Amino acid sequence: MDLVDRYGSWLVVAGASAGLGLRIAQEGARRGFNVVLIARRAELVEAMAGEISRDFGVQTRALPVNLADSGATAAIASATSDIDVGAFVYNAAAEPVGGFLGLSVNKHSAAIAVNCTTPTSLVHHFGTLMRERARGSITLVTSIGAFFGSRLVSSYAATKAYQLNLAEGLWDELRPLGVDVQAFVVGATATPNYFRPSPEALSTQLESIEVDDMLATLVNRGAHPMDPAIVAERLFESLGLGPTVFASPIDERLIARFHAVQRSEPVRIQGALIQRMLDRQG
Amino acid sequence: MDLVDRYGSWLVVAGASAGLGLRIAQEGARRGFNVVLIARRAELVEAMAGEISRDFGVQTRALPVNLADSGATAAIASATSDIDVGAFVYNAAAEPVGGFLGLSVNKHSAAIAVNCTTPTSLVHHFGTLMRERARGSITLVTSIGAFFGSRLVSSYAATKAYQLNLAEGLWDELRPLGVDVQAFVVGATATPNYFRPSPEALSTQLESIEVDDMLATLVNRGAHPMDPAIVAERLFESLGLGPTVFASPIDERLIARFHAVQRSEPVRIQGALIQRMLDRQG
Repeated sequence: MDLVDRYGSWLVVAGASAGLGLRIAQEGARRGFNVVLIARRAELVEAMAGEISRDFGVQTRALPVNLADSGATAAIASATSDIDVGAFVYNAAAEPVGGFLGLSVNKHSAAIAVNCTTPTSLVHHFGTLMRERARGSITLVTSIGAFFGSRLVSSYAATKAYQLNLAEGLWDELRPLGVDVQAFVVGATATPNYFRPSPEALSTQLESIEVDDMLATLVNRGAHPMDPAIVAERLFESLGLGPTVFASPIDERLIARFHAVQRSEPVRIQGALIQRMLDRQG
Repeated sequence: MDLVDRYGSWLVVAGASAGLGLRIAQEGARRGFNVVLIARRAELVEAMAGEISRDFGVQTRALPVNLADSGATAAIASATSDIDVGAFVYNAAAEPVGGFLGLSVNKHSAAIAVNCTTPTSLVHHFGTLMRERARGSITLVTSIGAFFGSRLVSSYAATKAYQLNLAEGLWDELRPLGVDVQAFVVGATATPNYFRPSPEALSTQLESIEVDDMLATLVNRGAHPMDPAIVAERLFESLGLGPTVFASPIDERLIARFHAVQRSEPVRIQGALIQRMLDRQG
């Protein structure tokens, strides 16, 4: 049974106008879903919706919505009230990068709004409708940054942990009701926002941390980001396989190994890696 | 050097009028801190502040504040602008219990406000002042529920993961600036809100999950909640030992062992345990 038969004919992708979200919308259309694309920039999201409609012969809708707004869920609910949403993917994310105290509180609050509050209310909305039909799929796109804290992206990593745990709890809670929920864990991916570190810069010793093989793996992943089209494919292949699915088996092994040590180790390693990546940019 | 000399003379405890938070305020006063108690109920927090002042001979202030309000941090900043806050403990938490879809979105949003947004802005506020003095201590009280998702407390577990990761990232980021940050992980504790499961009820097989030794340990911890006075003592003993400190070594070992299996296992075990505890209550 294909995904449209299993879940329903409409896919909603939040954060869909560029990068991984656009690939998810395209891959969904390729698999036969009609697609609602949600993103902030009206022109861009409308152009992408038109393109997907032409390329794949499916229906599309463009919803220009700022997902930091408290009215975002109501606007989306209203604009999708006449269609049966079978699959929902929350890919949008705000990522304040830099020292926590140097960034304004508003940046952190906006990240909480986009990464926690809005997906929670959207999951509540679409989940309620899916439960009524006893079928549906909900995916929260999270990050390998969810598993441990990290300086320089401290609030972002915290919001990604929120998404991870929320999806896991809902996986267990909604399975018996016919609704599949999953946390989809994405690592380094070659999207427009990705800053690729140079392997030379990263292979040197990072502060006082020994460059052990875990860090080397992380550096290597950073230097070889995944193709977002492949990440999008894996997302659809993994629906129903929750609670927690990794886009990359390398990332999955890495996180498993980090769990075998004191949390201070991955916290320091991730932090040092991000520090070095920012240093290379600046 | 005692804690007052190391960090400064005032301790701020958010969520301080009862249970563990009150014990933290008392233990802080016992160690010589002047204490600001923050809680929603004005009469209660004023009574407790008066009691601590009399019992320990320290200065106290009662701040009746609803930590779900967007103006909470501004109110607290204003009411503490004339004192040097050396230590800050965020113990307040909102915990919506029940099926995610059955609870209103407002309950989940309020949990995000109390457990994520407000502590983030308070840490930003006090952290900025501590950085200026190059000393201070910040503790986010989180839960063993932070490490994996769990049905019936799905949004709560998600907010606790947020706090865990935020504290860890800030531990790494603020250490070089003289500010100690830590996640303090609390498991079953005999506070007024704690619902103690009966060992008989919990020792039976939970749904399809085998009652293995990890679950047995969890059940046993549930049946033997820690004395909040001891948890409060451990909190102060652990300042500076971040990123992540457990109140109970049993909980620490348990979480370490859960990390050796697929995440679906702890997710299902935690969920089944909470389900059974609720069944016993209802």
